[in-house]
Amino acid sequence: MIKNKLLKQFLVEPGTEVSLKDYVTDWTETGEARELGKEFIKERATAILEESRASLAEAQELLYASDTHSVLIILQAMDAAGKDGTIRHVMAGVNPQGCQVFSFKKPSAEELDHNFLWRYMKSLPERGRIGIFNRSYYEDVLVVKVHPEWLGPGSPAEPDAGFWRRRYEDINNFEKHLARNGTLVLKFFLHVSKDEQKRRFLERLTNPEKHWKFSEADLAERAHWKSYRKAFEDALSATSTKRAPWHVIPADRKYVARALVADIIVTAIRNLGLKYPEVPPEQLARLTEAREKLEGEGSGES
Amino acid sequence: MIKNKLLKQFLVEPGTEVSLKDYVTDWTETGEARELGKEFIKERATAILEESRASLAEAQELLYASDTHSVLIILQAMDAAGKDGTIRHVMAGVNPQGCQVFSFKKPSAEELDHNFLWRYMKSLPERGRIGIFNRSYYEDVLVVKVHPEWLGPGSPAEPDAGFWRRRYEDINNFEKHLARNGTLVLKFFLHVSKDEQKRRFLERLTNPEKHWKFSEADLAERAHWKSYRKAFEDALSATSTKRAPWHVIPADRKYVARALVADIIVTAIRNLGLKYPEVPPEQLARLTEAREKLEGEGSGES
Repeated sequence: MIKNKLLKQFLVEPGTEVSLKDYVTDWTETGEARELGKEFIKERATAILEESRASLAEAQELLYASDTHSVLIILQAMDAAGKDGTIRHVMAGVNPQGCQVFSFKKPSAEELDHNFLWRYMKSLPERGRIGIFNRSYYEDVLVVKVHPEWLGPGSPAEPDAGFWRRRYEDINNFEKHLARNGTLVLKFFLHVSKDEQKRRFLERLTNPEKHWKFSEADLAERAHWKSYRKAFEDALSATSTKRAPWHVIPADRKYVARALVADIIVTAIRNLGLKYPEVPPEQLARLTEAREKLEGEGSGES
Repeated sequence: MIKNKLLKQFLVEPGTEVSLKDYVTDWTETGEARELGKEFIKERATAILEESRASLAEAQELLYASDTHSVLIILQAMDAAGKDGTIRHVMAGVNPQGCQVFSFKKPSAEELDHNFLWRYMKSLPERGRIGIFNRSYYEDVLVVKVHPEWLGPGSPAEPDAGFWRRRYEDINNFEKHLARNGTLVLKFFLHVSKDEQKRRFLERLTNPEKHWKFSEADLAERAHWKSYRKAFEDALSATSTKRAPWHVIPADRKYVARALVADIIVTAIRNLGLKYPEVPPEQLARLTEAREKLEGEGSGES
């Protein structure tokens, strides 16, 4: 487990104005990390991830058995920040039956014909499950803030500050509703630098096996880097709440990002204080009855 | 990989009448297995499962990248036959983003107000994904065949043979449609003996940590063992087709069942002959252009 004190630096304190330059993208370059050395950190991060994976598998079983809560994990980031890889590596040991991943793409005409939270509401995790949103309703205050022309029919051509404020409020109220009804909401912004994104794009463009991962649209969006950054800062500032906090995860080093995300999820689920359900005495009596009945059965296929 | 010759004994040849007594529940008790010895088989099965898990993770990536097919895995069985454990162990290494598990329980009033395939249609895996149905539309010719009173409004009180024949036909036509549209359908009946089910129920009734897994309804259904067996035989006989075959998996030994299921899935996906998508020349030119543009960029955060 990572110490709470260390984790705190990645949490967006509710009510604060986020400036992303205050959050590192390469944690191995920070003062405290430099002393440890990159090799040491990589080794430690890998060990922590391994440990968290096992803990997460256990935590998910308990989540399922106790059947009182669900967990919603939201991943947002610039392109190539490592959302897919994070999901694969963090959730690798979890029972796929207890884990549901949803990737949200360009909304369909049917989806645009509804309120903007509609399509996400339909994909929320059931009680006892971990749901992962690979992109989420936050796109509705991010990509469309950069490209208001993608807002869909019925929306203002030039949405003003009030429009976005109301969306943030809708999101906060939605997450309040989820929290009140037993959903633990954890939000991660994978914070990658513009240089690191360039390296990863070039890798996709150079390595023929990775060509299929590259979309020309990615480069077009990169041209809007500044606008996206601002949209993220606005969203993180407006929607980090005590019940659904944002974490800004340094993502230039994949092993750092994965270890942090895994550890934060495990810690948060543990803090729910879940317990395996106890069988009430009257049911215990019925179980004994059932056992006696079963033991008294003649054996053999019939 | 397990030899095709060995696997063939678990396949329900399309058009044959299934008698479940012809299929073993404990494969380690068969002639060929006895010679090898239980310890040897357990070791081999564990190795095969391990190997298949890695292959399955690769196969799923290819499935995702090629984006031409989806895979639907159907698991049916008597209670306590090991469906949940099979899913957990077979799919453990697969990227959860590429794998969707759906458990179907008692249908809701809304679901009963639709055609019986409706709720399953909505949960089919997207292209590039593996979908697992933990129970499925086969319940609509199994549990309701034993309990016709659960069929829901609008259904005959005493459904005749024609009623079930039409349901089998609907299912076969549905699976034909799926296969034609790029879905590989694989169906597994986990075949457990009545004695082994008794042992597993007793374990749940004796071990306090497993109490929560036991439902009194399980014992009530066990009383209908013969009727279920007959319903399974009828369904397996009527719906094992070349494009969506049934496998009867000996499930008294969990390690045997898991190794077999994993191996059959991997083999079937491999037989699709999928390839990583090739980038057409005109797009390759655009990728080069994108690379040059990216390389020419000034560096630094902006």
